[in-house]
Amino acid sequence: MKAARLFEYGSPLRVVDIDPPKLLDGNSVIVRVKGAGVCHTDLHIIEGVWREKVSPSLPLTLGHENAGVVEEVGEAVSGLFKKGDPVILHPRISCGFCRACRSGEDMHCESGFRFPGLTMDGGFAELMVTSARCLIRADGLDLAEIAPLADAGLTAMRAVKKAVPLAYPGAYVAVVGVGGVGHIAIQLLKHMTNANIIAIDVHPDKLKLAEQLKADYVVDAKKDAVNQVMEITKGKGVNVAIDFVGTKETHLNCFRMLRSAGKLVFVGYGGTLEIKSIDMIAGELTVEGSLVGNYIELVDLIELAKQGKVRVIVSKYKLEEVGEVLERLKKGEIVGRAVLIP
Amino acid sequence: MKAARLFEYGSPLRVVDIDPPKLLDGNSVIVRVKGAGVCHTDLHIIEGVWREKVSPSLPLTLGHENAGVVEEVGEAVSGLFKKGDPVILHPRISCGFCRACRSGEDMHCESGFRFPGLTMDGGFAELMVTSARCLIRADGLDLAEIAPLADAGLTAMRAVKKAVPLAYPGAYVAVVGVGGVGHIAIQLLKHMTNANIIAIDVHPDKLKLAEQLKADYVVDAKKDAVNQVMEITKGKGVNVAIDFVGTKETHLNCFRMLRSAGKLVFVGYGGTLEIKSIDMIAGELTVEGSLVGNYIELVDLIELAKQGKVRVIVSKYKLEEVGEVLERLKKGEIVGRAVLIP
Amino acid sequence: MKAARLFEYGSPLRVVDIDPPKLLDGNSVIVRVKGAGVCHTDLHIIEGVWREKVSPSLPLTLGHENAGVVEEVGEAVSGLFKKGDPVILHPRISCGFCRACRSGEDMHCESGFRFPGLTMDGGFAELMVTSARCLIRADGLDLAEIAPLADAGLTAMRAVKKAVPLAYPGAYVAVVGVGGVGHIAIQLLKHMTNANIIAIDVHPDKLKLAEQLKADYVVDAKKDAVNQVMEITKGKGVNVAIDFVGTKETHLNCFRMLRSAGKLVFVGYGGTLEIKSIDMIAGELTVEGSLVGNYIELVDLIELAKQGKVRVIVSKYKLEEVGEVLERLKKGEIVGRAVLIP
Amino acid sequence: MKAARLFEYGSPLRVVDIDPPKLLDGNSVIVRVKGAGVCHTDLHIIEGVWREKVSPSLPLTLGHENAGVVEEVGEAVSGLFKKGDPVILHPRISCGFCRACRSGEDMHCESGFRFPGLTMDGGFAELMVTSARCLIRADGLDLAEIAPLADAGLTAMRAVKKAVPLAYPGAYVAVVGVGGVGHIAIQLLKHMTNANIIAIDVHPDKLKLAEQLKADYVVDAKKDAVNQVMEITKGKGVNVAIDFVGTKETHLNCFRMLRSAGKLVFVGYGGTLEIKSIDMIAGELTVEGSLVGNYIELVDLIELAKQGKVRVIVSKYKLEEVGEVLERLKKGEIVGRAVLIP
Repeated sequence: MKAARLFEYGSPLRVVDIDPPKLLDGNSVIVRVKGAGVCHTDLHIIEGVWREKVSPSLPLTLGHENAGVVEEVGEAVSGLFKKGDPVILHPRISCGFCRACRSGEDMHCESGFRFPGLTMDGGFAELMVTSARCLIRADGLDLAEIAPLADAGLTAMRAVKKAVPLAYPGAYVAVVGVGGVGHIAIQLLKHMTNANIIAIDVHPDKLKLAEQLKADYVVDAKKDAVNQVMEITKGKGVNVAIDFVGTKETHLNCFRMLRSAGKLVFVGYGGTLEIKSIDMIAGELTVEGSLVGNYIELVDLIELAKQGKVRVIVSKYKLEEVGEVLERLKKGEIVGRAVLIP
Repeated sequence: MKAARLFEYGSPLRVVDIDPPKLLDGNSVIVRVKGAGVCHTDLHIIEGVWREKVSPSLPLTLGHENAGVVEEVGEAVSGLFKKGDPVILHPRISCGFCRACRSGEDMHCESGFRFPGLTMDGGFAELMVTSARCLIRADGLDLAEIAPLADAGLTAMRAVKKAVPLAYPGAYVAVVGVGGVGHIAIQLLKHMTNANIIAIDVHPDKLKLAEQLKADYVVDAKKDAVNQVMEITKGKGVNVAIDFVGTKETHLNCFRMLRSAGKLVFVGYGGTLEIKSIDMIAGELTVEGSLVGNYIELVDLIELAKQGKVRVIVSKYKLEEVGEVLERLKKGEIVGRAVLIP
Repeated sequence: MKAARLFEYGSPLRVVDIDPPKLLDGNSVIVRVKGAGVCHTDLHIIEGVWREKVSPSLPLTLGHENAGVVEEVGEAVSGLFKKGDPVILHPRISCGFCRACRSGEDMHCESGFRFPGLTMDGGFAELMVTSARCLIRADGLDLAEIAPLADAGLTAMRAVKKAVPLAYPGAYVAVVGVGGVGHIAIQLLKHMTNANIIAIDVHPDKLKLAEQLKADYVVDAKKDAVNQVMEITKGKGVNVAIDFVGTKETHLNCFRMLRSAGKLVFVGYGGTLEIKSIDMIAGELTVEGSLVGNYIELVDLIELAKQGKVRVIVSKYKLEEVGEVLERLKKGEIVGRAVLIP
Repeated sequence: MKAARLFEYGSPLRVVDIDPPKLLDGNSVIVRVKGAGVCHTDLHIIEGVWREKVSPSLPLTLGHENAGVVEEVGEAVSGLFKKGDPVILHPRISCGFCRACRSGEDMHCESGFRFPGLTMDGGFAELMVTSARCLIRADGLDLAEIAPLADAGLTAMRAVKKAVPLAYPGAYVAVVGVGGVGHIAIQLLKHMTNANIIAIDVHPDKLKLAEQLKADYVVDAKKDAVNQVMEITKGKGVNVAIDFVGTKETHLNCFRMLRSAGKLVFVGYGGTLEIKSIDMIAGELTVEGSLVGNYIELVDLIELAKQGKVRVIVSKYKLEEVGEVLERLKKGEIVGRAVLIP
């Protein structure tokens, strides 16, 4: 089968022919990929950013944002799924037995980090193997269009859930970066809170998208974003700022636009933030990382998709176009999310 | 009456004679001070650290950690308190009408920052004025001994409450700095959680105190604290680290000893922490400031004191000894808390 | 001034001329009533149902659901409000000092039950007295139209907030009774959750209203409501049932339609429910009363009204028509809420 | 192997010889029982109380409160446990895939109710079969002495966790019934809250046990328990009442002793409670069933046992003595918990 694989850090992916995957154990499932989203994390993997955190052996098939139909089912889970079932895939394969898993927090599974597309072969291929614990039924949905919900959407969901407790009616939430994740976050904030949403970006087309998604305020970050946010919030600042970009500059801006008791949530990464403890204490601020999301959060997100409340702006590409797609993503030219159809 | 006042930043307090305070309005109360704790924040005020956050006019009577007996009561609250009532004083005068106050979060009151000992005259004096909203009955307790609960104790309470949700039975909580606040935190963690407490300090007498307070582990920070914590936690790190010291070094150590999904709480301040967003996200970590505490948290703390579960290690001094006390505090020579008896 | 007053239990209110009210203390405020909602509780008060819980001295001016403009302000709160300010009134006068008040739970204030329209003169009059703690600015809103938010709306808000933790996307919430409170609850559930809403009533016009408010399912309770709910929920039952009616029959139906781990919230009252503990345990069910709401919940509700998300169906009447309005309410003929304009 | 089995509702168990159990699937485990607690639910099962909720086919080996050592392990979970491992068994076999399981709420598993000792053969036998999902390592603990933690202890844990949010320092929690479950609840309340514990029973030896366990107040229920509780709480009533007995009388007493905003938790069952909705609303009360507990709650409980904070009062019996033990339990003559050693 065809697969788009990383052979060397820093070099483009190559589309090659490889053997199809096999079931790993009685709980595993093989899925025929119908859509695989392309994510900034793919760029980071290629750059080697994740190399120090996890150490995948190359070559590696990327693609951690997948939906498809069940192709083959392990015997222990044959009563749960069958060939042909439409499914979306939670990106992390968790054990189901550790404290984190038993508490529902799959992302913190203590039994080894297995993440197709990052630590093992992923969905930039015709077929991929995962665990039954990752599957969620996606009947009646366009699998290519929902594929980005598996990671971009789920990441938006969890970040928004971290905002919810502070986002009372009329509170202010800043969404910094209206890209693949941010544009979903705006929709979720609209349906999960009654807060004012301030969308911030530098690209005119992304700001336009934010307007279409009914962000309450749209801020062009080229003109001192913090200042504009302070004006909108009458000098108080936002209750929550979610940074979907991840540069040193956006980190600092998010921090500076917080009001007392406010929270900064990191989703985009790559930058650093230097904080003074006196500022953290005087404002009783919180700075928090957000890591994808758990299984139930993805179940809830798929339900919102079924209700028509979340729609990913998707542009579809062939597997062979992966190199070009990654290039455009790097340049910030992708509006919404690019999805490969293997 | 006598009062210990700051006349110039960077210079020692001077004990002088001033007019006694008057009621400010119908809701205010005058208290005869029976104990006023001496805190690192007093050192910071003298140094001018708080100058950019609040701008008190000098001369200023310090002392924000007070207990005493009611001397005079405003007419609007005459049904609530009467002359002679033993009381402890919440340090912040809040309005009772803003969203924060109506939600019980007095420290985030939006109606001006009035904090005796910081923005107006405090308790290093025979008499002081405050609001009825600050008073909590303290019958049957030694007022000089509980005075430090008003700020050191309350600060420990709130920091510990931030740890509680992560401090399941057998979890690990690091208490970095066993000083005036930290030694109360250890007692609260003992009574409010069933987690393992790792007390960390550089002073042998403070480590000994931690042992007496039944910390589960005692770590001498002179010998690579992070390493020792990793050994104790079998390489996983702590669920929560509370930094009661506040230097660049303790901030970084606390951050480095966190496990996945862990939380760092700042109480001590002065230093800075540089964080990479990828670390925050990969571990889904939280970094959070803790700001004194609210009225109900102080009520609960006084109840714990009545139950004999929290005892401040107190050394009592005359008001005139304030200079010497501040000197010794600076050098880290005060075990527990120093209290002035005006 | 004119006021509609209860002179004898079981007898109709009489509109009479009485002296205007005076300020009670420095924290009180006199409001010129611009709208006073008429509520089932008014019927219950006249019937004497509340007589054993509270014992108001007759004659009593009813009306606990009020909005108006400030007429006169007590000196202690003169900085907060001024003559002419448009305001809605939280129905309970709370002390601001007890544990409940300091925790934000005004309805559980421990300092005497003062509730205009129930224990002291209320809003079926040209002027009424209340406390500054009850007032919320209502700029830009039609005061007669929002008056019902003060009690009916607030009651819906709190009941819905009790549903929220169980109302995940796709969960089922039954709203039993689409009257003055229930029809607001449907709107709140729409904006505060992504659950499926099942509206249940016996009146065709109320079922039609539910449809207009976009309830997901509408059930005619004349035809075995429980059965229909079980069909809608594929035999599982609802996650939450909120009973806005309050008869023995609706109580039992609500209980019987719960799924495992479900919750029944009482808002309407008058009936009884006999429960077997084995049923409560086997399903791990919760049965919970809901009591109006707190100040912040009313602040949030007014914000939702400003956002155009909550609209009360209101029919306006003169104060003199109060008797006729109460008659029609008793017969279930009022759609939405009747409001008196004194 | 020997097993104590129910052959007919209403008749005593008979100890008979049966074939040892076999692994059911790759996830199952066979355990050699080292202790099996005897519970009021066993009496209820024999009486047929559970017959309408679940319909086990007879004969049935009872025993749902088990600890032992692993005897044989299914292939899918052979990496997790091995022969000889000391374990305690969560009583419910859950699927691990439904919403409840993925949220950590095993007791609400939607995939069929499998509960050894109730719907399939249990632990009153030399060997029993369960799922790897039920096992928790119990190294260093006396297996016969901790067996009651699997159900009685876990049930106490969950009931106490439902009390915790209302049990602030100095609040009042009533423990009604100091039997096998109640005496563990007292210990948990001591270590998980700083509330005042009021232990209530009719048996002098159980009241004595409550005193030894350091309940703050001990009330002889033969002399109007509600009245005594009202005196202790200065007329306010308790914040939480947990009914471990389950008769109509204890249900009503618990309800009547609640203060405003209070909560009644059902653990014991069999009786009924008739509630007026006006009482539920006026006091904003909660009535809630508690159903055993989830896996993580049992993990936490075992940790508390390891810390020496929870000790079950145990009397050990041979399997053959099961009939006599059940008789004595029925008469309320068992102090603490009886455990069979097969």
